[in-house]
Amino acid sequence: MSLNRIWAENRAALNGWLAIPDGFASEIMAHQGWDSLTVDLQHGVVDYAAAVRMLTAIGTTDVVPVVRVPWLDPGIIMKSLDAGALAVICPMINTAADARVLADAMRYAPQGGRSYGPIRASFAHGADYPKRANEIVTAFAMIETKQAMAVLDDILATPGIDGVYVGPNDLALTLGLAPQFDPTHRTMLDAFDHILARAKHHGKRAAIHTGSAGYAKTMATKGFDLVTVGSDARFIAAGAAAEVAAFRARD
Amino acid sequence: MSLNRIWAENRAALNGWLAIPDGFASEIMAHQGWDSLTVDLQHGVVDYAAAVRMLTAIGTTDVVPVVRVPWLDPGIIMKSLDAGALAVICPMINTAADARVLADAMRYAPQGGRSYGPIRASFAHGADYPKRANEIVTAFAMIETKQAMAVLDDILATPGIDGVYVGPNDLALTLGLAPQFDPTHRTMLDAFDHILARAKHHGKRAAIHTGSAGYAKTMATKGFDLVTVGSDARFIAAGAAAEVAAFRARD
Amino acid sequence: MSLNRIWAENRAALNGWLAIPDGFASEIMAHQGWDSLTVDLQHGVVDYAAAVRMLTAIGTTDVVPVVRVPWLDPGIIMKSLDAGALAVICPMINTAADARVLADAMRYAPQGGRSYGPIRASFAHGADYPKRANEIVTAFAMIETKQAMAVLDDILATPGIDGVYVGPNDLALTLGLAPQFDPTHRTMLDAFDHILARAKHHGKRAAIHTGSAGYAKTMATKGFDLVTVGSDARFIAAGAAAEVAAFRARD
Amino acid sequence: MSLNRIWAENRAALNGWLAIPDGFASEIMAHQGWDSLTVDLQHGVVDYAAAVRMLTAIGTTDVVPVVRVPWLDPGIIMKSLDAGALAVICPMINTAADARVLADAMRYAPQGGRSYGPIRASFAHGADYPKRANEIVTAFAMIETKQAMAVLDDILATPGIDGVYVGPNDLALTLGLAPQFDPTHRTMLDAFDHILARAKHHGKRAAIHTGSAGYAKTMATKGFDLVTVGSDARFIAAGAAAEVAAFRARD
Amino acid sequence: MSLNRIWAENRAALNGWLAIPDGFASEIMAHQGWDSLTVDLQHGVVDYAAAVRMLTAIGTTDVVPVVRVPWLDPGIIMKSLDAGALAVICPMINTAADARVLADAMRYAPQGGRSYGPIRASFAHGADYPKRANEIVTAFAMIETKQAMAVLDDILATPGIDGVYVGPNDLALTLGLAPQFDPTHRTMLDAFDHILARAKHHGKRAAIHTGSAGYAKTMATKGFDLVTVGSDARFIAAGAAAEVAAFRARD
Amino acid sequence: MSLNRIWAENRAALNGWLAIPDGFASEIMAHQGWDSLTVDLQHGVVDYAAAVRMLTAIGTTDVVPVVRVPWLDPGIIMKSLDAGALAVICPMINTAADARVLADAMRYAPQGGRSYGPIRASFAHGADYPKRANEIVTAFAMIETKQAMAVLDDILATPGIDGVYVGPNDLALTLGLAPQFDPTHRTMLDAFDHILARAKHHGKRAAIHTGSAGYAKTMATKGFDLVTVGSDARFIAAGAAAEVAAFRARD
Repeated sequence: MSLNRIWAENRAALNGWLAIPDGFASEIMAHQGWDSLTVDLQHGVVDYAAAVRMLTAIGTTDVVPVVRVPWLDPGIIMKSLDAGALAVICPMINTAADARVLADAMRYAPQGGRSYGPIRASFAHGADYPKRANEIVTAFAMIETKQAMAVLDDILATPGIDGVYVGPNDLALTLGLAPQFDPTHRTMLDAFDHILARAKHHGKRAAIHTGSAGYAKTMATKGFDLVTVGSDARFIAAGAAAEVAAFRARD
Repeated sequence: MSLNRIWAENRAALNGWLAIPDGFASEIMAHQGWDSLTVDLQHGVVDYAAAVRMLTAIGTTDVVPVVRVPWLDPGIIMKSLDAGALAVICPMINTAADARVLADAMRYAPQGGRSYGPIRASFAHGADYPKRANEIVTAFAMIETKQAMAVLDDILATPGIDGVYVGPNDLALTLGLAPQFDPTHRTMLDAFDHILARAKHHGKRAAIHTGSAGYAKTMATKGFDLVTVGSDARFIAAGAAAEVAAFRARD
Repeated sequence: MSLNRIWAENRAALNGWLAIPDGFASEIMAHQGWDSLTVDLQHGVVDYAAAVRMLTAIGTTDVVPVVRVPWLDPGIIMKSLDAGALAVICPMINTAADARVLADAMRYAPQGGRSYGPIRASFAHGADYPKRANEIVTAFAMIETKQAMAVLDDILATPGIDGVYVGPNDLALTLGLAPQFDPTHRTMLDAFDHILARAKHHGKRAAIHTGSAGYAKTMATKGFDLVTVGSDARFIAAGAAAEVAAFRARD
Repeated sequence: MSLNRIWAENRAALNGWLAIPDGFASEIMAHQGWDSLTVDLQHGVVDYAAAVRMLTAIGTTDVVPVVRVPWLDPGIIMKSLDAGALAVICPMINTAADARVLADAMRYAPQGGRSYGPIRASFAHGADYPKRANEIVTAFAMIETKQAMAVLDDILATPGIDGVYVGPNDLALTLGLAPQFDPTHRTMLDAFDHILARAKHHGKRAAIHTGSAGYAKTMATKGFDLVTVGSDARFIAAGAAAEVAAFRARD
Repeated sequence: MSLNRIWAENRAALNGWLAIPDGFASEIMAHQGWDSLTVDLQHGVVDYAAAVRMLTAIGTTDVVPVVRVPWLDPGIIMKSLDAGALAVICPMINTAADARVLADAMRYAPQGGRSYGPIRASFAHGADYPKRANEIVTAFAMIETKQAMAVLDDILATPGIDGVYVGPNDLALTLGLAPQFDPTHRTMLDAFDHILARAKHHGKRAAIHTGSAGYAKTMATKGFDLVTVGSDARFIAAGAAAEVAAFRARD
Repeated sequence: MSLNRIWAENRAALNGWLAIPDGFASEIMAHQGWDSLTVDLQHGVVDYAAAVRMLTAIGTTDVVPVVRVPWLDPGIIMKSLDAGALAVICPMINTAADARVLADAMRYAPQGGRSYGPIRASFAHGADYPKRANEIVTAFAMIETKQAMAVLDDILATPGIDGVYVGPNDLALTLGLAPQFDPTHRTMLDAFDHILARAKHHGKRAAIHTGSAGYAKTMATKGFDLVTVGSDARFIAAGAAAEVAAFRARD
């Protein structure tokens, strides 16, 4: 199932985040009701081999498998697609040239230059995957720097870029603010609105990383097409910290 | 640091549980304030190689490393100790003979028959580990069947058994009840009280598996020396389910 | 889906065999039309951690997951079930006492002594797995020695043993014959017929290991309920050898 | 043993392909009579750590170890050589500049810029490996796009490029045809002939990916120096599918 | 190559020891001139999956592959043999019954009860391995307790036990002495002499664990058939400690 | 603890080197007295997943964790920092542009363009890591080619480059000399002196790779701020070779 099916229902996809390099942890997540799950090869403790295990675990359910790649590198983008990712989130797309490299790696000729060899994808998504691949994959360019904001329209206008994904922490840093989950600073909120508006203007998707269901819901209501909440790593830390605090609390 | 140091402070050890076979997941847990963490080789998705990675991750902090072995087998008990576990919880100790096998595997001669070769323990716990090992390790016999209840005193009287660890789910099953976290059934509560009382009578430690800080606190107040709450796997499931539900909720 | 569903269709289950410790190899196998796939922890190059990856890969399809354990050991039998195996094949069941140990490990009280903690099974087979587990799992005792043949009825009469699985190679060895795939020796064929007849007499299932679809079909026609053909490792060797021979052949 | 030794016998090297990230699967392949085996880091489910296990397994035989790298990246090319690969196949060499980067990464100064540190190669290929390395390694540039065809002579003329490796699927895609194993389309056959002829003109090696021994033999007869047939993954799929079909066939 | 070939040269086998669970570390060791290398599944940080990688690495050379199993367990003994070990060292053989279990697991019927399925051994040691296996494998019973010393002749007289392997540390412990490498205590030396003499009397092999080439040489001169020196883990520790000390030393 | 703390004591850091991809091997090294340990992702048999295990093992001690990345690639530089490396050594910095790419990847805005997400670093180095990261990390540019020597001042003048790390083997190769540990050739010694002098002139750190404590001491005395000696792989080879030679030596 691709993200397109969720969007065909006119609703935002609720995306979970996977930073722990273990298939069972991913399988637990895949049973909690997310629309999609993103294997984070950038800031997660995850490499390609772990990603394959995690995508396989996600594949035991109907959750849409997504990969965030560690960097703009055609090799890992294509390996992620071959391994069964239906969407790729690429960090630090700061120029139109960056966007073209990303777009080129995501689709087969003539739309792009993706190399042919969908080894796991053909099992995971059906024998007709090669014919459908260009239609069912989604390319997200991360907008997370001042530099990217300056050329946002060029990035959005790049053929083959299906949407943008807002990275609030890095965006905050390059705008001179402290990284913060679920920011309330005017500068940040304006940036989010601007990105969303320009994405819609170009007929592209907009996605955003958040730290809580409440913030995510607000963003979905604004019009974001995909909203990320939490991560397996954060759920462990938060759940454990809460239990320990409850135990240690004086009555 | 062994469990003895915590008990020297006259308080119950708060124990976390590790079912995900990944060092980073364990490292996150190790930073949340637990006194000890148990690598679960029985019902966790964990084998020896994962346990080594997890014990190493725990070793970056002062948390006491514990292992629950998959079964009463001297090979894995000794390998767990060699890998740095300072306490071993052994499932299904149902007879005094079982208890003797466990006790024998935990300590070097003349107290027991543990084979010599503390390969990681000597790095993790100091070059004098071999001399101190018999004093700093803790052997927990799991009491989790009706059969074990019938010979509880024999198990507790076994030299080298340092304590008992109550497994409520299996105990419930063999008592004809449904497995349940944090039971309130009279039969279960009576069993817990009985085990605790007999352990104290024999001068041994008593530990119990629980599903929440509240229940654990009650048990610690009763006199249990070690109480387990939750697990990394449960924190992921619960945290994710809560966020998904919050997002999906109609306002 | 358990083996019972296949048998409800009054046909033999076609079982594939997995000896390569890799999830992707298992996933390829899972898409070829088998009814069930057996992760071989005994003679395969497979341990528990690999089995989890392989069972997860099988779990992306409807194929029934089976594990052959390395030896009669309650620890690994229970870990296999917790990891999601719906049937367990246990080697070298040579006495009724062996059969009782196997049966005891396969089911929860009061039928057996399986310890409670179905960590992956509860995700793989549904939240109601604990209640259904005793009904949907299948315990196969391997009959593969002269000694086992002598007490076949005792083994078959053991409550909780759901069927027998014939291991032709070891059986041949203990009968003084050379190990051979798909034997035609009268002694072997008589043994197969005898085992099948006794199993049916006891209302139990009979399964057999074969080396080719043809032989398997003959056995299924005879009445065997599950027939194994080939393995991932054998398909690699045979396929490669055939291509190399074809290339090297003089025209 | 390097590819040069095979070519000294005036015959084409028969090359097998490894897509499954497991040493034992590779070891099975290594015993089937191939001249060389290629670890596919691009479209195989393989990363560097798996490649090391696979190259080690190949190293138990005399088969020549080859790596296809995931992308034109000096880091992984050098790591593959350090790990013992005697030939590297690099995808998507589309310009003479690409070819120079590849060539530079393959050999030590003064011929190239390969960084010194042949950690496994010095064990696998002898203590004199550093002195012989520049002679015994083979650099294959993949020719698999229309763009590459246009500058084929420039690529072939690049010093340090030892040969070209034809990728039929991507070549087909960029020529507006469907990817197909063992193509018979005139356009494809002409392209193969052209590449072979230009390679020979430049005194370089020509290699090609095929799907069957028959096609490979035809290509070897034409003059290709290395022909690839099948893969471990394909042998599993084909072997299993054939057995399942034979079993399911009505007589 | 089996240990028998070395012994046919009338010399002691020089055995190295592997405690680090990595194929490359084993491959380095395999190139240093040892006659055999032992993968230590007992006190090494090694499990079965690591053992396969390590045995594969050893298989790139002519060094004889040996495994020390973690405990007297037919499952892991047979898995080690299937994985290619040509000798097995089993710890804590303390009774004649123990010795019989070990012997039984090492050889195929009619000599023993080893289950048939030499999956990697058939590649590593040739297609005729099944026929030759009973002749080329070596079963070492570890003599390492006072209890074992008391029944030494019974153990040595057990058919299928090819030799004994002295474990000095555990033997010291059970004799009331501190574990010590290369002991000089009269009690220990007398024990070594006694074991050696009884082994020779029974026409069996004697082997011993030592901490230095010098001690090993003395033991080989006495008549021990296999002498172990050091381990990969010890070489790292000793080499690093020496360099650090040299650097920190005041001139 | 960062390298700055060692340098605050006005002494050279003694750095060990890790080429074996195993946490336990790293943990052994971490207990031998090194100031820092470098996980070698370039010429070591190490990838990112191994690096995480190794950094975790180092994290059980106070040794400073360093990573040498495989190539100048922002993705792996940032992943190494996120995984807890406090210093990064980057090979083949041959131009001022290379140096700028390295510097940019090492620090958060406004000093650089490091992407935010210090997943393991925040546990390993404290919750205030994000604020302190730019101060406590160290960026080493490897100077190892003639080309780099020609633009040494430009590299040293690059903001964010904290020091240079001399790679003698590659430097020798590009200067027309054979790779050699601890070179005595005038050309090499002059190069070392020149690099050291220019580094000091720019107020930057100088580091160097050596093969022995003696040579390292000489370099430290000259003024190098960090000196590397040996590696885990070399200690195994050297230790084993010495024992084997001692055993084989005729008296």
